[in-house]
Amino acid sequence: MTDWGVRAESLLNDLATCSEPGPGVTRLPFTPEHRAAIDLLQAQMETLGLTVTLDHAGTLIGRLAGPPGSKTLLMGSHQDSVREGGAYDGIMGVALPLLALAKLRSDGIDLPFSVEVLAFADEEGVRFPTALIGPRALAGTFDASVLSMADSRGVTLRDAMAAFGLNTKRIGTLARDPGEVIGFVETHIEQGPVLEHADEAIGVVTAICGIERHQIEVIGETGHAGTLPMSGRRDALVAAAAIVAEVDRSGQSTPDLRATVGAFDVEPNVVNAVPRRVRMTAESRSPDDMTRCDAGKALHSFVGELALRRNLTIKVRKTYEQVAQPCDVDLSRRLARAATCIGAQGMALPSGATHDASAMADLCPVAMLFVRCRDGVSHGPAELASSHDMGLAISALAEYLVSIDRHTNEADD
Amino acid sequence: MTDWGVRAESLLNDLATCSEPGPGVTRLPFTPEHRAAIDLLQAQMETLGLTVTLDHAGTLIGRLAGPPGSKTLLMGSHQDSVREGGAYDGIMGVALPLLALAKLRSDGIDLPFSVEVLAFADEEGVRFPTALIGPRALAGTFDASVLSMADSRGVTLRDAMAAFGLNTKRIGTLARDPGEVIGFVETHIEQGPVLEHADEAIGVVTAICGIERHQIEVIGETGHAGTLPMSGRRDALVAAAAIVAEVDRSGQSTPDLRATVGAFDVEPNVVNAVPRRVRMTAESRSPDDMTRCDAGKALHSFVGELALRRNLTIKVRKTYEQVAQPCDVDLSRRLARAATCIGAQGMALPSGATHDASAMADLCPVAMLFVRCRDGVSHGPAELASSHDMGLAISALAEYLVSIDRHTNEADD
Repeated sequence: MTDWGVRAESLLNDLATCSEPGPGVTRLPFTPEHRAAIDLLQAQMETLGLTVTLDHAGTLIGRLAGPPGSKTLLMGSHQDSVREGGAYDGIMGVALPLLALAKLRSDGIDLPFSVEVLAFADEEGVRFPTALIGPRALAGTFDASVLSMADSRGVTLRDAMAAFGLNTKRIGTLARDPGEVIGFVETHIEQGPVLEHADEAIGVVTAICGIERHQIEVIGETGHAGTLPMSGRRDALVAAAAIVAEVDRSGQSTPDLRATVGAFDVEPNVVNAVPRRVRMTAESRSPDDMTRCDAGKALHSFVGELALRRNLTIKVRKTYEQVAQPCDVDLSRRLARAATCIGAQGMALPSGATHDASAMADLCPVAMLFVRCRDGVSHGPAELASSHDMGLAISALAEYLVSIDRHTNEADD
Repeated sequence: MTDWGVRAESLLNDLATCSEPGPGVTRLPFTPEHRAAIDLLQAQMETLGLTVTLDHAGTLIGRLAGPPGSKTLLMGSHQDSVREGGAYDGIMGVALPLLALAKLRSDGIDLPFSVEVLAFADEEGVRFPTALIGPRALAGTFDASVLSMADSRGVTLRDAMAAFGLNTKRIGTLARDPGEVIGFVETHIEQGPVLEHADEAIGVVTAICGIERHQIEVIGETGHAGTLPMSGRRDALVAAAAIVAEVDRSGQSTPDLRATVGAFDVEPNVVNAVPRRVRMTAESRSPDDMTRCDAGKALHSFVGELALRRNLTIKVRKTYEQVAQPCDVDLSRRLARAATCIGAQGMALPSGATHDASAMADLCPVAMLFVRCRDGVSHGPAELASSHDMGLAISALAEYLVSIDRHTNEADD
């Protein structure tokens, strides 16, 4: 009997060789490493009897055609990695659906609808300061102006894609008809420790968290650390430390909120000078937009009161906002049921990170299956999903596929 | 009638032209700018009838000989500045004693002891990673190994001094006989806001603060700011912020203690990652060594408990310690009395910064006169002591000189 988890491990190990030299996996879009991954996936898809195309956004598509007139279920994720990243983030979400189809085939099961497994070119946004070209092209939300963006060597996205054999003028023609799509199901490593702590191999995503980012600048007054008395100091670092504590307190005490000060720079940053200025970021994420917005407003009031109390200037400005993307209730319920069928609990959890599914939600209902990752680690060579867990994910995806009705994206109950 | 404050202003303006181009004053030791300052000071000293020499440590010495066998009172400060510094720090402590001697001369007063006005080459330690060569040579504490230290262009201190015409082999012969020295009196801008807040032009230093510096490294665990739940986070920045708050609280609540976190670096320092590590400094200064040591011990215990409570590693290590240098009680009392004679209060205050007097204390009793500086600002082009305040300082120094007994460093009462 085939161990599908071991098959997944083997396929992902092969795909991990499609990488720049160095630790972990570095596979950026529209590069020789991307091409090598496409070749490997294409061979795998053809072995399974899928019809393979590369669309003009660089998305590799393996199509298993169902009966004439049937709708299509889209599955997949991105092929690219961060620099010195892991062998699972993204690409595992291409490999596991392929193996789920292989499992159904070996079980002699034909699906009453079409399936396409998609390997998007770029989700990480490492090479170019943009991402999600593939899903945006399918959703009809692609903005051609990003084609003029350049990588660190000055190569524009347009030229890189052309050199890869793609006709960027045709990206606008790739939009799918929502009426012909059942939904998009993305499988991804969790990139966090929630499943591991719960001792669960897989989980179903409730929503992709909304995000907001604030740039905060605390402007006090510097002075010689020896000659400036304590009383009357306007120490920017002491005020900034109070903001760090408040952001953390807010995150710790508010359900469904994650709040982080990640970047923090002090001036003049020398041992014997009272800090004049701190530039810092505050980021909050929540599957619930109201929770996130309330936290943002509370941060602004806290900062205003702090500036008054400490007699210094604090500028705060929201630099980024992305609303939460709830997953489709019906698709997710069916995915959870499939998980319970194979012995998992179908645990529900939010996704703190953004995924291809965020952009695909503009086209169709989306659902996401998370796979436990070791120590919650991702975006590095130590990233690991076990063959055991991947085997369960493949079984759950196969179970899910057989439970979907022909011609519909509705549940069959 | 001569306005001595205006004379001081004019002399300091002339000396400020001995500078590299750019904002403020940049006059580093053993440079053409140093030479220009020496030439200008030498002319001034000779006009006053002083015998001028340049010793082999680069200290310009103007000697007004008293009666045969009389002891010598040393006065002065350093000629060098920081980069883009002000026109007062250091050099004012050379100019004002010279003008005090000029005032006595114009008043027809002869002193019953010798006076030497010293312009030390280097106190700021900007060009070479060492300082205080001049006073250490006089005190017999000069360590010749520093001569091998190089500036940013690779020129050693030894070569720089030789090119300046100095014989560094003879620095060891410069040590003075303590029995022939009355004391060392240094005049300096306060470099802080204490006199300004007290509405006093001049003040007498009680002690040069002791200093200790700690290097603190907080090692937590990073993670994706979106995928890592709040509970169980080991955020290095949140812990470091608690240390910043504690250091400030300790300084605010402990009399005679100044406590500052000045340098603070976060890793990986990106908006969407929980900080893994913070490296920071904590510095405390006090005229009372016990106060400073107690604060250092309290910091170490605080940090130990914090590491336990937050389940992360905090390394803390004392990297520097300098004991407090109390000023001589008799010299200082006489200086304060001279201040009151000319209408000031003779306000007592500690010096948070280190001065040439710290090194001279190894040779003889020391005292320091502080002059108010505008907005407490120093080490920048905006540094200013008013001609009014400098005039009062000159009068106080002159008054002080006439109050000192022949052959003794004791008070005459």
